[in-house]
Amino acid sequence: MTKTLTPLEKYKEIFNDHKPLLLEEFYSFLKIPSVSSEPSYAQTVREGADWVAHYLRSIGFNVDIWETIGHPTVFGQNLDAGPDKPTLLIYNHYDVQPVDPIDLWKSSPFEPTLRDNQVYARGAQDNKGQCFYTLSALRSLRMIHGKFPINIKIVVEGEEECGSRGLTKILSEKKKELAADYLAVVDAGIPAKDVPAVSLGMRGIMTMDVTVTGSSTDLHSGSHGGIVYNPNRALAEILASLYRPDGSVAVPGYYDDIRELKKETLDNLYMDFDEAHYQKAFGAKPTGGEKQYPPVHRACLRPTVEINGIWGGYTGDGFKTVIPAKAHAKVSCRLVADMDPQKSAKQVADYLISKAPPGITVEVDIHHGGGKAAQANPASDVVKAFSDAYTEVFGKKCQFIFEGGSIPVVTALAEASQSEVVLVGMGLPDDNIHAPNEHFGLDRLEKGFLIIARSIELLGNL
Amino acid sequence: MTKTLTPLEKYKEIFNDHKPLLLEEFYSFLKIPSVSSEPSYAQTVREGADWVAHYLRSIGFNVDIWETIGHPTVFGQNLDAGPDKPTLLIYNHYDVQPVDPIDLWKSSPFEPTLRDNQVYARGAQDNKGQCFYTLSALRSLRMIHGKFPINIKIVVEGEEECGSRGLTKILSEKKKELAADYLAVVDAGIPAKDVPAVSLGMRGIMTMDVTVTGSSTDLHSGSHGGIVYNPNRALAEILASLYRPDGSVAVPGYYDDIRELKKETLDNLYMDFDEAHYQKAFGAKPTGGEKQYPPVHRACLRPTVEINGIWGGYTGDGFKTVIPAKAHAKVSCRLVADMDPQKSAKQVADYLISKAPPGITVEVDIHHGGGKAAQANPASDVVKAFSDAYTEVFGKKCQFIFEGGSIPVVTALAEASQSEVVLVGMGLPDDNIHAPNEHFGLDRLEKGFLIIARSIELLGNL
Repeated sequence: MTKTLTPLEKYKEIFNDHKPLLLEEFYSFLKIPSVSSEPSYAQTVREGADWVAHYLRSIGFNVDIWETIGHPTVFGQNLDAGPDKPTLLIYNHYDVQPVDPIDLWKSSPFEPTLRDNQVYARGAQDNKGQCFYTLSALRSLRMIHGKFPINIKIVVEGEEECGSRGLTKILSEKKKELAADYLAVVDAGIPAKDVPAVSLGMRGIMTMDVTVTGSSTDLHSGSHGGIVYNPNRALAEILASLYRPDGSVAVPGYYDDIRELKKETLDNLYMDFDEAHYQKAFGAKPTGGEKQYPPVHRACLRPTVEINGIWGGYTGDGFKTVIPAKAHAKVSCRLVADMDPQKSAKQVADYLISKAPPGITVEVDIHHGGGKAAQANPASDVVKAFSDAYTEVFGKKCQFIFEGGSIPVVTALAEASQSEVVLVGMGLPDDNIHAPNEHFGLDRLEKGFLIIARSIELLGNL
Repeated sequence: MTKTLTPLEKYKEIFNDHKPLLLEEFYSFLKIPSVSSEPSYAQTVREGADWVAHYLRSIGFNVDIWETIGHPTVFGQNLDAGPDKPTLLIYNHYDVQPVDPIDLWKSSPFEPTLRDNQVYARGAQDNKGQCFYTLSALRSLRMIHGKFPINIKIVVEGEEECGSRGLTKILSEKKKELAADYLAVVDAGIPAKDVPAVSLGMRGIMTMDVTVTGSSTDLHSGSHGGIVYNPNRALAEILASLYRPDGSVAVPGYYDDIRELKKETLDNLYMDFDEAHYQKAFGAKPTGGEKQYPPVHRACLRPTVEINGIWGGYTGDGFKTVIPAKAHAKVSCRLVADMDPQKSAKQVADYLISKAPPGITVEVDIHHGGGKAAQANPASDVVKAFSDAYTEVFGKKCQFIFEGGSIPVVTALAEASQSEVVLVGMGLPDDNIHAPNEHFGLDRLEKGFLIIARSIELLGNL
């Protein structure tokens, strides 16, 4: 007697029957070094776009490659479900972070390697892994239904890791193409392996370069040490002044515009933070940020200022007794609702400049791009459909989280498409995204695949 | 009627008659990229030693190349003057500083180029320029006298720019070879183009690497910002804590062992400091160091702590939202008499380690090498002979200065050779030593040549 499979079981069967093929396709995507922030990779970034476009066409999408002032965005749509059905816009990105420090990778970042059921590669999670289970789930939906149960649009951009400048700039021209009821940003995560959760928000981000100048040429620290103000010292002092002893950001006004969350949202948040696990995973203690808040709040609900890079003087082997002409830093601000990105970045820049000691010039170049924090409506249909799919796939109740990371274009995309947003994904805090040895588990590749397929079916049943 | 030339005029004539040959020889020395601090240059550093050895042999020296644990030292001696005459030990070095940032050089650092009567090349002054006029003056002395008027020993080492580790280690075995009455360290300078001066002292130096660790892997500043203590922030705070608001070094005990100079020495010091000229030459204001001291004191008579390099996180093009696992600094201490190098370095290291915030580990690796400050006796014969030669060559009274820089091996060499030391040279503060576009004027090449020749004659007349 043949047992009738549940919808979930059907998708599980498809995933497992096609696993070798899926992995082969996934690896071919991961092998493309689509590092968007480094100009020398421009050609291989475009190969990433072509790969996505080809995949989408093969599963019935009309595909356009939108050229931008930066890297291209791939846009696909399939409206076969018809005007009576809702439209879901999906967001992914095909670009990846740089790979340095390259010597800390155990296997080459663009040669995907399976160890302990984890795929190791740059982009294995962020965001090629999440993009790939989305695309393969779409294919399986079409296999099962003959056509998609709802109208699907998909945007896969190539500049998420460097500020989404190109896509942001063309959003206002593409409102008609993007128009949708719902927006699912598939670039988020779950707080732990066995905890189903959808994200209600994501921090915004602004980035800047800080340049500290003390002289017109590098100087010898024997002849000039004690006379000039060393730019490395000035940089250290200026950056140190960003923080108060309680870990809060010392920039005046930085916290003024924060919208406090409603009590019922806070009460339903996943709040676990396992310090022992964290220390084991990252070799780090949760000693940063504002002391008066618990780690989960500090990581997601509070804004930060981080020094992502510093350099000045001699940094090679041996020693060089130099006082450099300039010292540098790269600084980012993570923002929460309702902080205004331009205003917040300018507050930080003005503060840094105001801290210049005598004889030292401080210049701050606030980068284009960046964006506001995103917030979902916990009562919307799309949050409900995805929550139900997570509950079904994990076999336990889906919770709410906020993401600490940022997808600067999300708020702009939600506005352009006039849609209700939800942030979903299968990332884990210890996937080493943006770091050496990025990885993504095959179990989560499957769960992501199942959730995309089931969420879309559930949206089709509404 | 033939006019009888003064001794000084004779050497001037020789210099000017042989100028094209001298420059050709000088350039062949400068073309050798003898960068001692970078292991990849080991072979060309040795070529520097060979060049010096060859030159010394050609002018009548018995030459040994002393192998060391690092780069070789060239030792030459000519004792033809006989036991009734005093022995002068001369010190130079044939190694040079690294060349980065290479893109700021107007001509290639190892392709000497003459512009406005200045030779531009790495080492043009420090110390190949000063070594070269010494060697060519020795040759001319032998041309004039048939033999040297006094006994001459010369040490030309290959690790001055990276701590003189090899030479320092063998000094105790070489006491007999090095034994001398006087030691002239020809690696110093004059405070201005038209100011004759010999140096009575030189600061000592100790260097160290500082490593700040926050986690076992680089982390994403979205997911982890606000949770962990960013090592870049910790490094900035730790380094900023080295200085008090008045510019003094905040390390406890750092100033305890300073020997104050006698009033009569202080009264005879060249004290001019032209702020406008300084700003024009270096594009810098004299705003560093201890506010209660004048610039000349801060540059030579007061100890410093300088941050010679800092780096951590992403420092390339674009932006990477990383919290690095580690951040780094290279720190040097310039020491004055009678600060103990090991003690002073340990004070700084202990202080830096004590400033580690919670969750952050600070490690300090104090480098081998370094050394005490050197001090000459203003009443010694060798100081007198060189002072008189400076007065004669410049046509105005020689003054006393102290050098801000360090030749770590000098004190050890004075001890091993049991000699009275003087520090002499033709460097100017704006020669860009240790920086792009290092240069040395032909006028000073000639004056250095004349001073070496005349000082040795004067020592022979005592």
